[in-house]
Amino acid sequence: MNARPTLTSIEEMLEPDGTGRVVIENVWPELDGGRTPVKRLAGDEVEVWADIFSDGHDILRAEIIFRAEDEPDWRRAPMTFLDNDRWKGSFKLERNIRYLYTVEAWRDVWGSWVNEVQKKKAAGQIVTSEIAEGVALLEKASERNDSLASVLGEVQAQETGSDEQLGALIDPFHVKAVQDAAQRGNLSRYDRELVVIADRTAARFSSWYELFPRSMSDDPARHGTFDDVIKKLPYVQGMGFDVLYFPPIHPIGMKNRKGRNNSLKAERGDVGSVYAIGSDAGGHDAIHPDLGTIEDFRRLVTAAKQHGLEIALDFAIQCSPDHPWIKEHPEWFDWRPDGTLKYAENPPKKYEDIVNVDFYNRGAFPSLWYALRDVVLFWANEGVRIFRVDNPHTKPLPFWKWLIREVNRTYPDVIFLAEAFTRPKMMRALAKIGFQQSYTYFTWRNTKAELTSYVTELAGDLGEVYRPNFFVNTPDINPIPLQTAGRAGFIVRSTLAATLSGAWGLYSGFELCEAKPLPGKEEYLDSEKYEIRAWDWDRPGNIRSHITALNKMRRDNAALQDFRNALFLNAWNDNVLAYAKLMPERDNCVVVIVNLDPHNRQDTSFEIPLWEFGLPDHATIEAQDLLRPGSPFTLHGKVQTVALDPATNPVLIWRLIPPRP
Amino acid sequence: MNARPTLTSIEEMLEPDGTGRVVIENVWPELDGGRTPVKRLAGDEVEVWADIFSDGHDILRAEIIFRAEDEPDWRRAPMTFLDNDRWKGSFKLERNIRYLYTVEAWRDVWGSWVNEVQKKKAAGQIVTSEIAEGVALLEKASERNDSLASVLGEVQAQETGSDEQLGALIDPFHVKAVQDAAQRGNLSRYDRELVVIADRTAARFSSWYELFPRSMSDDPARHGTFDDVIKKLPYVQGMGFDVLYFPPIHPIGMKNRKGRNNSLKAERGDVGSVYAIGSDAGGHDAIHPDLGTIEDFRRLVTAAKQHGLEIALDFAIQCSPDHPWIKEHPEWFDWRPDGTLKYAENPPKKYEDIVNVDFYNRGAFPSLWYALRDVVLFWANEGVRIFRVDNPHTKPLPFWKWLIREVNRTYPDVIFLAEAFTRPKMMRALAKIGFQQSYTYFTWRNTKAELTSYVTELAGDLGEVYRPNFFVNTPDINPIPLQTAGRAGFIVRSTLAATLSGAWGLYSGFELCEAKPLPGKEEYLDSEKYEIRAWDWDRPGNIRSHITALNKMRRDNAALQDFRNALFLNAWNDNVLAYAKLMPERDNCVVVIVNLDPHNRQDTSFEIPLWEFGLPDHATIEAQDLLRPGSPFTLHGKVQTVALDPATNPVLIWRLIPPRP
Repeated sequence: MNARPTLTSIEEMLEPDGTGRVVIENVWPELDGGRTPVKRLAGDEVEVWADIFSDGHDILRAEIIFRAEDEPDWRRAPMTFLDNDRWKGSFKLERNIRYLYTVEAWRDVWGSWVNEVQKKKAAGQIVTSEIAEGVALLEKASERNDSLASVLGEVQAQETGSDEQLGALIDPFHVKAVQDAAQRGNLSRYDRELVVIADRTAARFSSWYELFPRSMSDDPARHGTFDDVIKKLPYVQGMGFDVLYFPPIHPIGMKNRKGRNNSLKAERGDVGSVYAIGSDAGGHDAIHPDLGTIEDFRRLVTAAKQHGLEIALDFAIQCSPDHPWIKEHPEWFDWRPDGTLKYAENPPKKYEDIVNVDFYNRGAFPSLWYALRDVVLFWANEGVRIFRVDNPHTKPLPFWKWLIREVNRTYPDVIFLAEAFTRPKMMRALAKIGFQQSYTYFTWRNTKAELTSYVTELAGDLGEVYRPNFFVNTPDINPIPLQTAGRAGFIVRSTLAATLSGAWGLYSGFELCEAKPLPGKEEYLDSEKYEIRAWDWDRPGNIRSHITALNKMRRDNAALQDFRNALFLNAWNDNVLAYAKLMPERDNCVVVIVNLDPHNRQDTSFEIPLWEFGLPDHATIEAQDLLRPGSPFTLHGKVQTVALDPATNPVLIWRLIPPRP
Repeated sequence: MNARPTLTSIEEMLEPDGTGRVVIENVWPELDGGRTPVKRLAGDEVEVWADIFSDGHDILRAEIIFRAEDEPDWRRAPMTFLDNDRWKGSFKLERNIRYLYTVEAWRDVWGSWVNEVQKKKAAGQIVTSEIAEGVALLEKASERNDSLASVLGEVQAQETGSDEQLGALIDPFHVKAVQDAAQRGNLSRYDRELVVIADRTAARFSSWYELFPRSMSDDPARHGTFDDVIKKLPYVQGMGFDVLYFPPIHPIGMKNRKGRNNSLKAERGDVGSVYAIGSDAGGHDAIHPDLGTIEDFRRLVTAAKQHGLEIALDFAIQCSPDHPWIKEHPEWFDWRPDGTLKYAENPPKKYEDIVNVDFYNRGAFPSLWYALRDVVLFWANEGVRIFRVDNPHTKPLPFWKWLIREVNRTYPDVIFLAEAFTRPKMMRALAKIGFQQSYTYFTWRNTKAELTSYVTELAGDLGEVYRPNFFVNTPDINPIPLQTAGRAGFIVRSTLAATLSGAWGLYSGFELCEAKPLPGKEEYLDSEKYEIRAWDWDRPGNIRSHITALNKMRRDNAALQDFRNALFLNAWNDNVLAYAKLMPERDNCVVVIVNLDPHNRQDTSFEIPLWEFGLPDHATIEAQDLLRPGSPFTLHGKVQTVALDPATNPVLIWRLIPPRP
């Protein structure tokens, strides 16, 4: 029977070399069918798994092929067979750049022949034909690789089909050499090139302190300057932070300026919201004149570096009605047919001190996009390598994807932190399209069940792309529970944030246990967003020493520098959360026991994870109290009992010191 | 700052129309990132889910777009918002063909405007500017669609900016018309076209009976013919089967012919293995001369159809050493350098009565591939629409993928059943690349835990591509437990297969409780693979009436026609397996209670799934015994107690009749 007209030519569908004969599937890590890069850190070893199999009984081999995106050639790392057609290998991320990787696998024709002839020989079968086949395979291989000439000579010197000839063929040294040179049978490559982004360490491990520079004069009547901030650097450094983050530092508009406590009308002397960016003095690449000059800013960046701090700036795209762009580029904004400018709004709410750009306006694409990119590049060029992005979920995702890729091409070390508090899939999408770090729901996760479930979720597939920064408060979030929790609540929440997440942060005032709310709201009273405040940095009851201890133990213990390694421990009291942070190598382990009830003493038994060190339940283990430095002490047995009193010790943090093997 | 040379042109990365602004992700069904089609039946409604969201507050809309692969244009089905950015819609598979589908979503600019203006109006705000904007939007829409001229006229007739004009704009009838005509803002399409294969019903629901035509003479001394098979059709039809499957019917080679019980040397008169295909009389498109002619075969196909049976043939690619292809096409086979032909082997095992083709031999690709395809097309042209494929896992997957697609282009109703008993990922891969139905591990799943776990696995993601056929035995598998289980065991295993899987089958002799093994092996003694047998079709103790009852209840109860709808029920006895087969609409429900111990009576309490019908635990429900027809009876309460005696009632099968709402 002849092919019918509807039948396809075989050449359309198949490669005559048999690509695809070796199946490579279920590759991990791979997200969204290869659409979404996974995130790791430079220095990490990436483990790659794949299911690899083929028809028949031939021996298979496989390699990871990988390269940094600026390298022309693939590098190779071997994979080894595990079980149930599953293979595994790994490669190292050496630099802060994107890497591509995929998998190749092939039939090891030579190795299969060796295996076959050995089995037959062991069963006492005659293998003369098989030896002839082996010689032919060797001849072919030596055509491809001159170095096999001597092996071939040795084999050919033996009597044809003899045991001696077979012996020369399957000599282990020869086998390896021929295997390396022989053609890779039905060489198949996985059909997607996957991407892993190797970020710098701060993307996962950093300790953030946020302050309003204009409040740094310690005098509510005087606008703080960058020089005032420089004077505060030892204070911030003293608590052990490494990122110092400022809300917007740009000129602030006059039109529709907000007054104190977000009142619609500013009084004379009111400084306005720092988020109403832009005035006669300039826009997103200008500095508020009362803060200082660009030279002052440069001095601040340098001084911060000398104090072990890097400056993070706010990237908030909205404009005040006085922003220079509105006159210079009306085509970037959204106007109604009657010539009125659309203010930011979420009907019926209106935000009349800001207007939004329109990314897809005729005339805005691509000039606006370039201008916004150039704002980031401007500050990056001034030494800023971290941008906290304000409300990214209200701007188009394709814009962020492009912007982040674009900036990272020039500055691979720039980190963008997504300040989105919105629906979970948008939060995840922002991480997927490139944000290196993200704000989280942490401030609204307070009970044992909530915390366990949330940290577990972050540690799963989500954690391949989404890196949390556990802020304990922000200028927008004065957490309701903290408003009445007292000092113990601040100790508890900072402990949770600093030990559960590699990146954590606080907004100044938290260390002073500041919690006065706008009545009934999650907002601070007399918020610095709208006015200059002066603080008593030595306010009685402050928790500076606790925060200092937290940041020190984070530096000293690798287990506290990640967010995916929490092991929740049995603790038979629902007000007590107990967990271990644990390195995969088991060479660092910190146990944290937290009383979530800030008002009452809670007693509990809980389990020390002796099993993780291969120890029996009745074993002893040494421990070090990381909050009350002193000699190590000995814990006897898996079950321990503790009392956690809000007044004295709402939390316990112990480093376990397993016996050296 | 100017763009640096390393920066990308924005046009390279982005569409100025804002495609991608609306995110469409996590589409279901989608397997392997869109690489693998899912399988359904013609007539099924395919539900499609997706996460859909965008920046900001605009109203979104979404549609499934779909088409049969031979249709030039997309059709559309609306999606509706569920919760948490999740949307859902469905479309119907009308024909036995492949369908493509994907998702489109867009910002509903007009609907968003209506929503905004209504909210503002409700809050008492002045909306003059907004009305002007609405009129402009309407003007734009009517440029795209003439039918809006009258709406526009009506709106323009009102005073500009008046409440009356607003009223005309947001009149519900106008809103719908404008919405349909207005431009779809930032129209985005999911980045993959996904495939669903709509097979005919038999792919999921069919009852198979396997026999060796040459044994149908009822005389071991006489080779059976197709006419003998025709005489047996009423017997097979009487038990309610709808597929009649034959092992290979082709000429059998003489060289190295196997003797009885797989002995290496045939005696005079031995008929050889049906799997040693090919002799002087022809190869894969020839019929064994002793069975009859092609005309006899055609008569058999017609007679079978008249008995409600369709013929399934075996497609076994190996060749006997006498197969005509070996002389005609030596280039299709694998020869050693010394001119010897490689026999099939799995060292140290040898199968010297067959040789394998080599799919990637120089000279074999593609001519061998076309020849094999033409074998299938030859039999398809003779009216055969089901092929049971022998050992597909020992042939290249790309070959099967091509072959099945190729055959289905001409004969979309052809079903290929993969006879692979190998590692799980290869089993799945064969299903993924196209086999419509697969043999399973069912014969080796005997305990309650094994059956529950296996059926649950099949009902998960695996079931999107892998359709099981639960054969209770095969000429190669005389299940070890059945060798000693007695009649009750045959009743139990046939009940499990026929009620847990939409497709099931038996190899003749099972209904006679035949189980004599080759001692110590999973093989039958005096196997029909190597000799002609004669059977007493009325052997005492046969279970024909039970099988007849099973096939009848399968036809009468839709819940028994699928394999993904088993609900395992609590039964407090590890020897008793209880489950309900349930339609999603709850309009058909069959409860099966099986004593897995063929030797002892087992008593148990178990739960009737009253909750599935919204009934309380103490409710009553009517039931019908499907094995002992009679009047319905009433079950009182969720927990029921039964005694299952191997001698009298090893299984109970009840149809539940819930009260009409």
